[in-house]
Amino acid sequence: MTPPEALRAEHPLDRADLRARVGKALDAFVSARRPTLETVSDELVPVADALADFLAEGGKRVRPAFCYWGWRGAGGADCDEIIAAAAALELLHACALIHDDVIDGSDRRRGRASVHRRFAALHRMAGWQGDPDAFGEAAAILLGDLCLTWSDQLLADSGLPSDALRRGSAGYDVMRTELMAGQYLDLLGQVSGEASVDRALRVARFKTAKYTVERPLLLGAALAGAPEQVRATYTEYGVPLGEAFQLRDDVLGVFGDPGTTGKPAGDDLREGKRTVLVATAIDRAGVTDEARIRRWLGDPGLDGPELAALRGIIVDTGALDEVEGMVAELTARALDALVGAPIEPEAGEVLAELAIAATARLR
Amino acid sequence: MTPPEALRAEHPLDRADLRARVGKALDAFVSARRPTLETVSDELVPVADALADFLAEGGKRVRPAFCYWGWRGAGGADCDEIIAAAAALELLHACALIHDDVIDGSDRRRGRASVHRRFAALHRMAGWQGDPDAFGEAAAILLGDLCLTWSDQLLADSGLPSDALRRGSAGYDVMRTELMAGQYLDLLGQVSGEASVDRALRVARFKTAKYTVERPLLLGAALAGAPEQVRATYTEYGVPLGEAFQLRDDVLGVFGDPGTTGKPAGDDLREGKRTVLVATAIDRAGVTDEARIRRWLGDPGLDGPELAALRGIIVDTGALDEVEGMVAELTARALDALVGAPIEPEAGEVLAELAIAATARLR
Repeated sequence: MTPPEALRAEHPLDRADLRARVGKALDAFVSARRPTLETVSDELVPVADALADFLAEGGKRVRPAFCYWGWRGAGGADCDEIIAAAAALELLHACALIHDDVIDGSDRRRGRASVHRRFAALHRMAGWQGDPDAFGEAAAILLGDLCLTWSDQLLADSGLPSDALRRGSAGYDVMRTELMAGQYLDLLGQVSGEASVDRALRVARFKTAKYTVERPLLLGAALAGAPEQVRATYTEYGVPLGEAFQLRDDVLGVFGDPGTTGKPAGDDLREGKRTVLVATAIDRAGVTDEARIRRWLGDPGLDGPELAALRGIIVDTGALDEVEGMVAELTARALDALVGAPIEPEAGEVLAELAIAATARLR
Repeated sequence: MTPPEALRAEHPLDRADLRARVGKALDAFVSARRPTLETVSDELVPVADALADFLAEGGKRVRPAFCYWGWRGAGGADCDEIIAAAAALELLHACALIHDDVIDGSDRRRGRASVHRRFAALHRMAGWQGDPDAFGEAAAILLGDLCLTWSDQLLADSGLPSDALRRGSAGYDVMRTELMAGQYLDLLGQVSGEASVDRALRVARFKTAKYTVERPLLLGAALAGAPEQVRATYTEYGVPLGEAFQLRDDVLGVFGDPGTTGKPAGDDLREGKRTVLVATAIDRAGVTDEARIRRWLGDPGLDGPELAALRGIIVDTGALDEVEGMVAELTARALDALVGAPIEPEAGEVLAELAIAATARLR
């Protein structure tokens, strides 16, 4: 598989200068909300700052990119309105990440302290009363709520015509409901100890796959008033690609370089995530190895030789190879869906590049 | 002040059969969302059930009532569409309560276990792995997020014309932003230990007053396309009434009967809430009493003689009388705003009754 750098100098996520424009739209939106917060009290300034920082550090803007190219693929013209609408997905995602980090007790996000840790640090610095961690979590819950509210507002205020917004709204609602439902299912998987491959795949499908690729594409399509054939193409492309994307993420969560992922190596194992990769390893392991996996998985102190041994089991059982095979097959299915599809050529080209870039082995 | 029962047999919140109709609209909405959840997994059924239960137990539907009468007062006709739109506020409120209980670590809500406690109990009953309380909080964060998402969806799908919804959207967004901001300010008050009356009033204004009365009224007005004069009346009536409402709640949080409030007596004191009532008591107390207030306030084990002594200080300093005086004055100002106001007579009558019912002494 050719790495995207060989296809063109620029990363496909940067086509149409997308990352920069989405960043600007988010910045403008948050700036415009500052007066409302400051009317309540100037003590809200750190809240607006925390959010502006979090959004500026900003990840890869994958969901806005799929929304934008979903629109363009359906014949929508490039304009600032679709950028603003696409940027709304980044606010939704900010809520998901901020709340997820509280739920998982994750200390790091995007290579920096997670939001609840930052507010805990603010509490310590100010010498306030009570438990700094409890304050941090409370503030992060509220900031996540604000992001969720604002995501909806940014979409509504994007400047797109109201009939376009009405077309987009049903799918957007399903997307948000599926996201919360998938997160709950993920949570259940961690506490029930049920680690079947089928269950892990279902979590991957709803928590990440549809939410990351298919739903953003369909939002762009709905906003553009795309016909059924275009929407069908997006589903055929988006569902397998989203799953490939999640499986790639699972592999990175175990074997990824902290410098690239922004999280300490092996974090997913310490958090006890029942990923497809882990479920496959359990499926394939003998009695002794299965017991070792179950003993180490979810141990917050897992590191050093035990972490290395757990990784070794995942490789030796053939689970890593099997998951890599699934990634390759799912990516191929996604690319197939684009062949001869009734979408605008430039969008088709970018979607193909995105499929390759998002699933390529990084090691 | 005449209790509302003397004015008419039925409680003003039940006029136009409002509580029952809002309950039905919520029920229908959640039922219609079940298939989306169940497509993800039948393990989501308890989530839908928990939400349906929570909404059915349902409080007084105060915010939907103000939204509805805000619409009617501006000349809007009674219809199911405005009931659905008004019911959306109940979903927003459900999010606020569910997340607030996580933040405050409150065990009880509406006379039953709070949502995070219920999910912790589910965890224990199922014998799952890990910490039941952490699971309960995680599930409650996600359920609150779902409520926030759905509130927006219920408003958008209410069936009101899109120009009405567009008129309503700006105020609705400010309302949600103010709510989150007010909650953060409340949180800061608890950790900073700063308990000035001014600060407590500002929290009351944004966290409860505007959010409970003025913003719902203005939402109804905006949906109905009300002229400036009507909106001005709602602000003149709503802001003081909302503050009176919050002050009444502060008094109930210290002196209220658990059978009526649904929370253990003195919960606000154990949680260390810096209410206007408490701030006034601190202001008026001598050195010894101030030290006792500061020692007991926020002590999770506060009960028995110490709780009684703290209540005694609040009475003896004159703080209770002062707050009762403020309630009476604010209520009178709210009622004054209705005199000769350009709103429909039935709505004016109900708003007057609501002002009296919501602020009357219950002891």
